[in-house]
Amino acid sequence: MQHKVALIGGDGIGPEIVAAGREVLDAAGERYGFDINWTEFDIGAERYLATGELLTEEDIQELSKFPAIYFGAIGDDRVRPGILEKGILLAIRFHFDQFINLRPIKLLDGVTTPLANKKPEDIDFVVVRENTEDFYVGIGSRFSGTHEQKTLEVVRDMYNIKFGLDVETDADELAYQIGVITRPGAERVIRYAFDLANRRRKKVTSVDKANVLSDVYGLWRDVFTGVAAGYPDIQTEFNFVDAVTMWFVKNPEWFDVVVTPNMFGDIITDLGAMIQGGLGLAPGGNINPDGTSMFEPIHGSAPKYRGQDVANPLATIWAGSMLLDHLGEHDAAAAVLRAIERSIRDGYVTRDMGGAMKTSEVGRKIAELVKTV
Amino acid sequence: MQHKVALIGGDGIGPEIVAAGREVLDAAGERYGFDINWTEFDIGAERYLATGELLTEEDIQELSKFPAIYFGAIGDDRVRPGILEKGILLAIRFHFDQFINLRPIKLLDGVTTPLANKKPEDIDFVVVRENTEDFYVGIGSRFSGTHEQKTLEVVRDMYNIKFGLDVETDADELAYQIGVITRPGAERVIRYAFDLANRRRKKVTSVDKANVLSDVYGLWRDVFTGVAAGYPDIQTEFNFVDAVTMWFVKNPEWFDVVVTPNMFGDIITDLGAMIQGGLGLAPGGNINPDGTSMFEPIHGSAPKYRGQDVANPLATIWAGSMLLDHLGEHDAAAAVLRAIERSIRDGYVTRDMGGAMKTSEVGRKIAELVKTV
Ligand SMILES: CC(C)[C@H](C(=O)O)[C@@H](O)C(=O)O
Ligand SMILES: CC(C)[C@H](C(=O)O)[C@@H](O)C(=O)O
Repeated sequence: MQHKVALIGGDGIGPEIVAAGREVLDAAGERYGFDINWTEFDIGAERYLATGELLTEEDIQELSKFPAIYFGAIGDDRVRPGILEKGILLAIRFHFDQFINLRPIKLLDGVTTPLANKKPEDIDFVVVRENTEDFYVGIGSRFSGTHEQKTLEVVRDMYNIKFGLDVETDADELAYQIGVITRPGAERVIRYAFDLANRRRKKVTSVDKANVLSDVYGLWRDVFTGVAAGYPDIQTEFNFVDAVTMWFVKNPEWFDVVVTPNMFGDIITDLGAMIQGGLGLAPGGNINPDGTSMFEPIHGSAPKYRGQDVANPLATIWAGSMLLDHLGEHDAAAAVLRAIERSIRDGYVTRDMGGAMKTSEVGRKIAELVKTV
Repeated sequence: MQHKVALIGGDGIGPEIVAAGREVLDAAGERYGFDINWTEFDIGAERYLATGELLTEEDIQELSKFPAIYFGAIGDDRVRPGILEKGILLAIRFHFDQFINLRPIKLLDGVTTPLANKKPEDIDFVVVRENTEDFYVGIGSRFSGTHEQKTLEVVRDMYNIKFGLDVETDADELAYQIGVITRPGAERVIRYAFDLANRRRKKVTSVDKANVLSDVYGLWRDVFTGVAAGYPDIQTEFNFVDAVTMWFVKNPEWFDVVVTPNMFGDIITDLGAMIQGGLGLAPGGNINPDGTSMFEPIHGSAPKYRGQDVANPLATIWAGSMLLDHLGEHDAAAAVLRAIERSIRDGYVTRDMGGAMKTSEVGRKIAELVKTV
């Protein structure tokens, strides 16, 4: 069996951590009888600084031939925040319609959580983040004079009328941002969450702020309620996003599957990452079940550690396990996760987790372990 | 000296907790030589259910005569989420232009935090939440056919063009929500944060998501940078909202003053409330330095505990301390906070904090303590 996987190391520590992950996945393939055919893509800050290119038409063309992308990280101190994130990472998520952002929040054995009195059995849930809509659609404007002038004027009018103001000069600068949720966009991801809960502990929590942002999240709730009706065995609940940050910290054991619009998903999965031991341990999958999906650690490129072989590769290796799962290699995926746990138990971890290993050493160790564990 | 204060008990446990707070504030007045002249307002779910009225023109007229409102909580199971919150609580914040939402995050002595290894000296910062703009402006729509039709059409067009879609039928229902930030709106609250930091540990952290919602939060960052230039002694930093949820949990000692747009402020102050021991201990002030301000616990009305005299009144009493501070009664304000701490130390607390006291008993005890502590 052969699997084709696209590899984007990206910036900073990205290339080092995907190299570690690649070694582990190849080793898993040896044991479970598959081969990964890797194709490296040179996408990231360096190319952008040299050529001005972010994600090109050609990149998209080429990447669309792969069922999965293994992604390191992007971000560079020489580039203004937002350019690479929007031009590459979000561009891939949107172009390939990766509408499911799957983020397991699981405290592995041997990992320290900053929460008092919580054990691995208390922290084991999955966040399903909608990944193509909401405030991430990138519609907004500032000043006037762009192609979005018409909208800007309307927004300004609405704002002035609503608050009896008269904002119009440049000194009274105004910016707006629009979030959009569509019924089909909400439905497909909520349905995915229910299907997932069906294979787990049968509970789905919706996270929104429908008491204030009633238009978008009112629609979200209605869709949720409609989908829930088709799953009578699944327990459901609504949480407001502000409250859910409290319960993640106080009672993470309450959660099984959490489904949420894009922006709140961004926020609560970082919090989730922290309670499971930090960003060094938080993987994510950007999934289009019928297209090209992408697997990545959810942390950034940590430019200052670049080339030092010190970054923690566990989130990336775990993302590799999700990638294998996505390709149907379920046994191999499970073995990778077991190997990660074994490596933690045996103290083969990087500095940030209290160990003394290098990035590449952790990769090599887990690649060994995955053959037998 | 006489102070006029408006009292809105509201729903659920609201009347009980403000009664406890009132007793404490009156006692503080006895000691420090002022009198509070209380005027009760009947605003909340009961009136809404009986008359359909939320915040009336007359209410606004009357409330505007007071420098401060002492507010309990609103929310009732018989009313759909959002109606009372938007129609009363947010309406007061907006009408009185209470553009500063001040939320101290402070772990008091003797209180248990869910974080491992954090002590009172590690958790002591203040969040300054912008309170009148951002996604709280309530501009949005769903379906078409309202007065906002024109905007809906523009949004729909932009969305379709951007994503090459053709969303138009009812089955393909779409909702949008608009956030607005203005330069003057951002500037005044950011300036307040810097002035506050000047009297504290001289550090201001801005929380946004400018890498994705670049229009509104790009403007926010520019304004922040402009204001910061006038305060060369203050250390500043930008955090993305997702990351800040991690640092609140991992390194709360990093923060002094945190300033943030409305919606992110909502989210991170609930998280802040949890790390300082839970909602039972989290007060907030909605401040207009030149108008009518409002002080409240940040928790809700907990309808199921209504009338049972079991709710924790500490957040409300602490909000009362902030109210006194706002009225210039700084010594009295400090005494109330000391009395709260003494009461916790001596175990005079409600069930949720491991004690055996009733709401009214805690109020009475702190009213006693405030006379001598
Ligand atoms: C880098 C950034 C654009 C991204 C996001 O906001 O989605 C990241 O925070 C994440 O969660 O994957
Ligand atoms: C009740 C709700 C509208 C309110 C808000 O979102 O501001 C509350 O959560 C708060 O933080 O005071």
